[in-house]
Amino acid sequence: MKFGGTSVSDAEKIRSAARRVVQARNRGRQVVVVVSAMGDTTDRLVHLAGQITRRPPKREMDQLLATGEQITISLIAMMLESMKTPAISFTAGQIKIITDDVHTQARIRHINAHRIHGELDAGRVVIIAGFQGVTEDGEVTTLGRGGSNLTLVAVAAAIGAKVCENYTDVDGVYTADPNIVPNARKIARVSYDEMMEMSSLGASVLHNRAVGFAKKYSVPVHVRSSLHNRKGTMIVKETEEMERIVVSSAALKKNLASVSLRNVPDRPGVAAGIFHAIAAANIIVDDIIQIETGPKLATISFTVDLHTLPEVRRVCRKLFRQMKSTTIECEKNLAKVSVIGLGMRVHTGVAEKMFAALAEGSINIRNITTSEIKISCIIDKLDGPKALRLVHDAFDLGRKKKPIAKTPKKKTSKKKIASKKK
Amino acid sequence: MKFGGTSVSDAEKIRSAARRVVQARNRGRQVVVVVSAMGDTTDRLVHLAGQITRRPPKREMDQLLATGEQITISLIAMMLESMKTPAISFTAGQIKIITDDVHTQARIRHINAHRIHGELDAGRVVIIAGFQGVTEDGEVTTLGRGGSNLTLVAVAAAIGAKVCENYTDVDGVYTADPNIVPNARKIARVSYDEMMEMSSLGASVLHNRAVGFAKKYSVPVHVRSSLHNRKGTMIVKETEEMERIVVSSAALKKNLASVSLRNVPDRPGVAAGIFHAIAAANIIVDDIIQIETGPKLATISFTVDLHTLPEVRRVCRKLFRQMKSTTIECEKNLAKVSVIGLGMRVHTGVAEKMFAALAEGSINIRNITTSEIKISCIIDKLDGPKALRLVHDAFDLGRKKKPIAKTPKKKTSKKKIASKKK
Repeated sequence: MKFGGTSVSDAEKIRSAARRVVQARNRGRQVVVVVSAMGDTTDRLVHLAGQITRRPPKREMDQLLATGEQITISLIAMMLESMKTPAISFTAGQIKIITDDVHTQARIRHINAHRIHGELDAGRVVIIAGFQGVTEDGEVTTLGRGGSNLTLVAVAAAIGAKVCENYTDVDGVYTADPNIVPNARKIARVSYDEMMEMSSLGASVLHNRAVGFAKKYSVPVHVRSSLHNRKGTMIVKETEEMERIVVSSAALKKNLASVSLRNVPDRPGVAAGIFHAIAAANIIVDDIIQIETGPKLATISFTVDLHTLPEVRRVCRKLFRQMKSTTIECEKNLAKVSVIGLGMRVHTGVAEKMFAALAEGSINIRNITTSEIKISCIIDKLDGPKALRLVHDAFDLGRKKKPIAKTPKKKTSKKKIASKKK
Repeated sequence: MKFGGTSVSDAEKIRSAARRVVQARNRGRQVVVVVSAMGDTTDRLVHLAGQITRRPPKREMDQLLATGEQITISLIAMMLESMKTPAISFTAGQIKIITDDVHTQARIRHINAHRIHGELDAGRVVIIAGFQGVTEDGEVTTLGRGGSNLTLVAVAAAIGAKVCENYTDVDGVYTADPNIVPNARKIARVSYDEMMEMSSLGASVLHNRAVGFAKKYSVPVHVRSSLHNRKGTMIVKETEEMERIVVSSAALKKNLASVSLRNVPDRPGVAAGIFHAIAAANIIVDDIIQIETGPKLATISFTVDLHTLPEVRRVCRKLFRQMKSTTIECEKNLAKVSVIGLGMRVHTGVAEKMFAALAEGSINIRNITTSEIKISCIIDKLDGPKALRLVHDAFDLGRKKKPIAKTPKKKTSKKKIASKKK
């Protein structure tokens, strides 16, 4: 079971999280709990560091941030003990969640499952600090955004857990962000691949590194609310049934920026050099396009998260010094709207339908990228919410009770959604 | 250098602490910094635990409290780095401050000096979390009250530091608590033994375990203010000159309780059994008196800190079940006033002078205990402040500028204080 920050933000919520653990134990289960920092603790620690310096060393940032989860684990252990349920808390260092040494973005290499099993077999609930790791040398690391979910899935994989329950402040995974699309619908089951696309396309429910881990080790993840007992969304291995749904969800990624490098020498190894430098700065690149623009010259264009733009600029300027003719152009106010569905592998016509929906709303498409199971369009940031609603309706993803689309055109896909609901 | 909680309570104070470190480095010194939790952090963590349960497991309490110092070390490292001073922070687990496994009251067994020297020789300031330790098995422990000072002295001893600078919110060690005795005087130099007596008798400047450690390894400790650059008090090996001062300070321990066990069978091993049980509960006993009260019967009476009384009662009741005739009596509102001085070893008449001073103030003495270098009287709690002022004046310990005593009687001891000041 994993409890996110909002699910352990005060003593009362910690109590109700602990009650869930006790209930599961009463049903004869062994329980491992992974927790995030309480409420806004991490933000407050980041703010503290911000009062000290604008560029804190990453090692020290990890040392600082890891305290947030350590507070929660001890409080949960205390609460369980006060409910007569034996419990023991562990930091990443204590349970040996060994990572590489990339501070603030570390990757898990190994977890001491033996110790966890030992405590479980001794009748204890094992409570593990999420988000953090430790290098072989004992340096504290953190796993980056969504790190607690990564801990959840990695621990589940290491101990061979039957299911991961990810308790959070949302009910599950929706066909689109319900804050933007009022008739968005909760999805009962979604495949790892779809969930990964959704995560990297803007759905913040579960980080795609966590989903990737879950897929690799076939760990089913149940994303559900900590406020009630209704079922949420199961993220599972794909089934044939799932492939019948052409489009299962739509997503919007809001704060994007594009970087265009013009007059890049078009010879082997140049692009590799650029993206190697960017990756070395731990910046995640969204989409990449390269177009030949003249004799031995190309334009390389890519999108990144807006907040990484200053770092991207720094990295590119360094490269720019070495390639005199190249110019750097950045554009800030972009968004990306996408549709995702396993069925795209076998069905055609998805792209046209999406473009038509956007055209109907007079939304200009800057850029298009596709994968086997998704189509994305880069658009102006201001058009984002409208675009998401339009494509959500075009593929008829919403609740039937309150249709927003005036003329539901897509009978075919409607039937398919209906068949999924059986 | 050690900075206490009030000396690192916000970013500005952390900046001025870091400046001191930079100044010391500029004077060519290698610096190790030991820090406490910021301001009221520990209190807030204790409060958090209190919202969860009234009796948190000690292991989890240590896991929780250790986060306070971890926050401070990372912030100090960030601040130093922002001042272009290479720095690296370490938790007790990382630097291997190995302790026993007595949670909330652990004792240091070993410190990895090699690692500290390595970092110092690489040109870094080493910042170590005070108050915490780690067992051989990686369990987080804490060292009890005043634990950060214990870390300071233990680290200094381990690395062979020339001096410990203990930066705090007081100017140094005073002849008595200046909040109670307005004419109390700062002492320039005090011996380890006197300081230990002063600590265990109520002076909160430096915990006696820390002073004991300092004495054992001959580490000079400079207790000084973090607010200015004036010298504080040096705690050092005793000198012949120090023995010329009969009484160097007076102290008041406020919240004491006494426990009297009546009709205890007077046979060998009984007292040992009682105090073994009390020590096993990690309760520190102040003074012990045993008096024969009948054939093979005795009264055993001892004082403890008021806040430990409930636990003492629990322990004694357990013993009471085994010895049917014994009764337990507790008295709550007690205090202890003491005078301390190396010169008592060679001078007489200190006890009479003290008793006379208390008698002059009509203060009833419940109980008297002595050591080689101190005399203590148990009195009513309400008489405490007055008693402290009376004995402080009787031994003429105050500032000469504003004498409070009407008739300074003790010309001899006055001269001695004067000679010390040379």
